[in-house]
Amino acid sequence: MPRFLILADGEFSPETSKTANSVIRYLPDQVVGVMDRVNAGKTVQDVLGYGGDIPVYGSMDQGLKQRPNAVLIGIAPAGGRLPDEWRGWLADALDAGCDLWSGLHTFLSDDPVLRERARANGREIHDVRRPPPGLPVAAGLARLVDPLVVLSVGTDCNVGKMTAQLQLVRGLRDRGLRTRFVATGQTGIFIEGWGTAVDAVVADFIAGAAEELVLKAAPDSDVLLVEGQGSINHPGYSGVTLGLLHGSCPDALVLCHQASREFIGEYRGSPWLRVPPLPDYVSMYELIGSAVHPTRVIGISMNTYDLTDAEARDACDRAAAATGLACTDPVRFDPAPLVTAIERAFEVKRGRRVSPSWP
Amino acid sequence: MPRFLILADGEFSPETSKTANSVIRYLPDQVVGVMDRVNAGKTVQDVLGYGGDIPVYGSMDQGLKQRPNAVLIGIAPAGGRLPDEWRGWLADALDAGCDLWSGLHTFLSDDPVLRERARANGREIHDVRRPPPGLPVAAGLARLVDPLVVLSVGTDCNVGKMTAQLQLVRGLRDRGLRTRFVATGQTGIFIEGWGTAVDAVVADFIAGAAEELVLKAAPDSDVLLVEGQGSINHPGYSGVTLGLLHGSCPDALVLCHQASREFIGEYRGSPWLRVPPLPDYVSMYELIGSAVHPTRVIGISMNTYDLTDAEARDACDRAAAATGLACTDPVRFDPAPLVTAIERAFEVKRGRRVSPSWP
Repeated sequence: MPRFLILADGEFSPETSKTANSVIRYLPDQVVGVMDRVNAGKTVQDVLGYGGDIPVYGSMDQGLKQRPNAVLIGIAPAGGRLPDEWRGWLADALDAGCDLWSGLHTFLSDDPVLRERARANGREIHDVRRPPPGLPVAAGLARLVDPLVVLSVGTDCNVGKMTAQLQLVRGLRDRGLRTRFVATGQTGIFIEGWGTAVDAVVADFIAGAAEELVLKAAPDSDVLLVEGQGSINHPGYSGVTLGLLHGSCPDALVLCHQASREFIGEYRGSPWLRVPPLPDYVSMYELIGSAVHPTRVIGISMNTYDLTDAEARDACDRAAAATGLACTDPVRFDPAPLVTAIERAFEVKRGRRVSPSWP
Repeated sequence: MPRFLILADGEFSPETSKTANSVIRYLPDQVVGVMDRVNAGKTVQDVLGYGGDIPVYGSMDQGLKQRPNAVLIGIAPAGGRLPDEWRGWLADALDAGCDLWSGLHTFLSDDPVLRERARANGREIHDVRRPPPGLPVAAGLARLVDPLVVLSVGTDCNVGKMTAQLQLVRGLRDRGLRTRFVATGQTGIFIEGWGTAVDAVVADFIAGAAEELVLKAAPDSDVLLVEGQGSINHPGYSGVTLGLLHGSCPDALVLCHQASREFIGEYRGSPWLRVPPLPDYVSMYELIGSAVHPTRVIGISMNTYDLTDAEARDACDRAAAATGLACTDPVRFDPAPLVTAIERAFEVKRGRRVSPSWP
């Protein structure tokens, strides 16, 4: 079992280190520390508001002294290339007996220095964004699987599409539904241990990668919770979003939103496109998704991490009123409203329940 | 200037050899022959109904005797891999002094035998589907360019999105509009001499590749005719379609349809999804395109290659009546209705004309 030291140097915060933060949230017992010179000496709890007393170290040396057996890259370096400084740190980590786990577009195992060092030390480099060989062009086969397929879709990047699904797994299992999380991005793959980063495959095979994941996860499952990517109106990433929507053939969609988000892509420095009202997203996702396989938005997952409890409750109430759908923040509040919405959709698909409006 | 021998063995027909056929249509003076054992001895005219007396040869040897200086792969081999037989033919072509032009997903220049043979003979291998380095994530910059951006969008793959645009170039130039064709697929790149195959880039960069093309083509242009890809409701390729739509930020769309097409992807062996009515496509493309940059469908390009003249005229009339838009088959009939629609859109964008309904 990996015991991770997470590399998040200079970027460890609630907003910027999405991968690091999610691994800490879902695999806290497997994280021995975070390397970040800016927050050195603090605990993860100090920085994120969760994560307990996992320490933040100011150097790789210090971090490696805690005897991790794996170093996980928890942030994306500016420009996507591996900084020279990181190469040195990662080589040291290999020498210290660690495997490397990376979701960067630049593959660590293509770096001759790191590859040689891994070989010499008998360690492994896991580039989880490297596409699997032999991906198909999707042919709509995911529409034929038995389980209820639920895809999380978003109003933007980085609003909580993966987290929404991960928060629902336990609640669904508690109701007797055999539920699997289907990872489509680097962080989800770290957490679940398998999956394909659909944003990293050749464009013609986005939907095919999603189809392959759904077909693989379907046997012996009642509900598949497929991790969504991007947003249908994101100027940079919408192609990934739509390929995933059409390749996974979801029966039901959970729409994910961050209550305080005003502009699309605000973490990417292009604040010109306003986030439209939630009912517009419901229309867009249902229209375009149903063009391949009939689908409905069945609930709203609201990310309220930066609000007070009262503001958060108000945001959920307003979203529910505007859309007529169940809405909760499944991290802050009880995920039950979304669990119930999925359970009902499952019963409709199984023919145990008749719905006038769904599917 | 390349003088092409086109390799289309076993697949040379109006339906199956899209790349070969388009190169023949738009660069007839640069094609010395086609290699296809099935149609050996015929002329291209016999097989396609156009192309004149360009011969079809039954072996590479015969074809190479016509002294081409380039061999162009005009079909996609089954499975996407290079058949062993082809590798031998292509090696012979390099020995005979030919460059190689390929739009396959499998890059010829990654084949050690062919790469070495090219080097030894001082010939070049053009893998036009190889993505350029350093593609950006799109940031909506194409919305800011001066020229009118027109994207062709389709009801399916292989309905005539590239051909529609190529048929309009001359008509627009004749009206004094500085017009450029922007190639986004292998065949368009062969014909225009530059471009990026957006279906071959890593998924995160589809829109970025389109944005980069539009920014590059914009200076000193009045109208950019961007080649569309796939279809917004294609189970396999919709991601490419939407990335291109959002990355190129078109002001206007030309909707392309093949009148006799009943099912999506019928040339790919998955006849289960019916082609919806044209007005549904107008709604889908306008809704989802305008989520990033306001856009309107301004005309219909109807592919009627397999119909009689009377049937073709009827198909255009019915599409125009159903949508209220100009419709023509720009190959069979006069492209003027679409040229006029684009000219009007250009005048609206320049502020020279007020339109109650556009943009």
